[in-house]
Amino acid sequence: MPGYTKFLEKLIEELSRLPTIGPKSAERMALFLLKGSSTQAKALAEAIINAKENTKKCSLCNHLAEQEYCPICQNQNSREKVLCIVEDPQDVIAIERTGRYKGLYYVLWGRLSPLEGKGPEDLPLEKLLKRVREEKVKEVIIATSSSREGEATAQYLRQCLLPLPVKVTRIARGIPVGSNLGHIDQATMSHAIDGRREVNT
Amino acid sequence: MPGYTKFLEKLIEELSRLPTIGPKSAERMALFLLKGSSTQAKALAEAIINAKENTKKCSLCNHLAEQEYCPICQNQNSREKVLCIVEDPQDVIAIERTGRYKGLYYVLWGRLSPLEGKGPEDLPLEKLLKRVREEKVKEVIIATSSSREGEATAQYLRQCLLPLPVKVTRIARGIPVGSNLGHIDQATMSHAIDGRREVNT
Repeated sequence: MPGYTKFLEKLIEELSRLPTIGPKSAERMALFLLKGSSTQAKALAEAIINAKENTKKCSLCNHLAEQEYCPICQNQNSREKVLCIVEDPQDVIAIERTGRYKGLYYVLWGRLSPLEGKGPEDLPLEKLLKRVREEKVKEVIIATSSSREGEATAQYLRQCLLPLPVKVTRIARGIPVGSNLGHIDQATMSHAIDGRREVNT
Repeated sequence: MPGYTKFLEKLIEELSRLPTIGPKSAERMALFLLKGSSTQAKALAEAIINAKENTKKCSLCNHLAEQEYCPICQNQNSREKVLCIVEDPQDVIAIERTGRYKGLYYVLWGRLSPLEGKGPEDLPLEKLLKRVREEKVKEVIIATSSSREGEATAQYLRQCLLPLPVKVTRIARGIPVGSNLGHIDQATMSHAIDGRREVNT
């Protein structure tokens, strides 16, 4: 059966490896690139190579950096001595967007996941503990996700941090803003009730 | 507000231009590429460049080709002298997959679309009419989409082909296989009734 050319097949195959992209979307994206200008296709190819070659991990917090330190760690003297542990760089960006947090971060680049073969030795914990010890961190906020794996990671981090003289907290779980209570799952609802706070009028 | 590095911002921007990719998906795809190996990122960048540089349009039917003719036109002697007009290369692949059609194709790379400023002069019609005339084509099947724009294109093609001694047909519209009649829109239902065929038991 005649199909696409072999270069197009290869492009569809490579695009299909991206997250959330199925074979149909990959086909559509590939044909879009072929229909468009050469300049546009080249711009995308170059952006991939440039991003890959020029992005490092901050040597203090593992967040994305162009130089040795990320922009947040470069300014660490103007920030509070609080360390927020997250799974991924997206999480840093999401927290920064709120403008509410003035502390520092520590990016794990993953979480404990027996299914994916990720154990404690795959998380950069030594550097974390060293930083907490040496930089007189006042508080560590565990902000791993609230999935089962994120919770297991949080539990493990809590145990590692316990021997250190530092306050350890976990971000609050509860009803997301704008949600209808009738649509909330049981686990979230339990957390929302357990974590209730007094309202002082 | 500290955000991503400028190279990562650029990659997210370029990925957002792809069809069906919003800013959130682009962010996820970009971080996936950064997390993965250099080999994988390079493979994708190279696949884009290779596909763009090595894919041409068949000089007979405009379908995707690595050489002057696409694999279908290369074999045109073993195929029926029927020409199926489609909007895009995907449509050729979709029809070839059925294994039911043994004729040739003609790819318009688009359709009449006043909203996108696409008029008759933007469709490669002269080459189509020349081919129908010179190659003693027995039948032309108009297989543009059944959207409003696809129908307008079909109507226009019909008028262009009318003066030529060739049978012109339009692919059937009706109930898609596996559909529940209760969920079918009125227009499709009307076509399904108008296009009904006698069943000989």
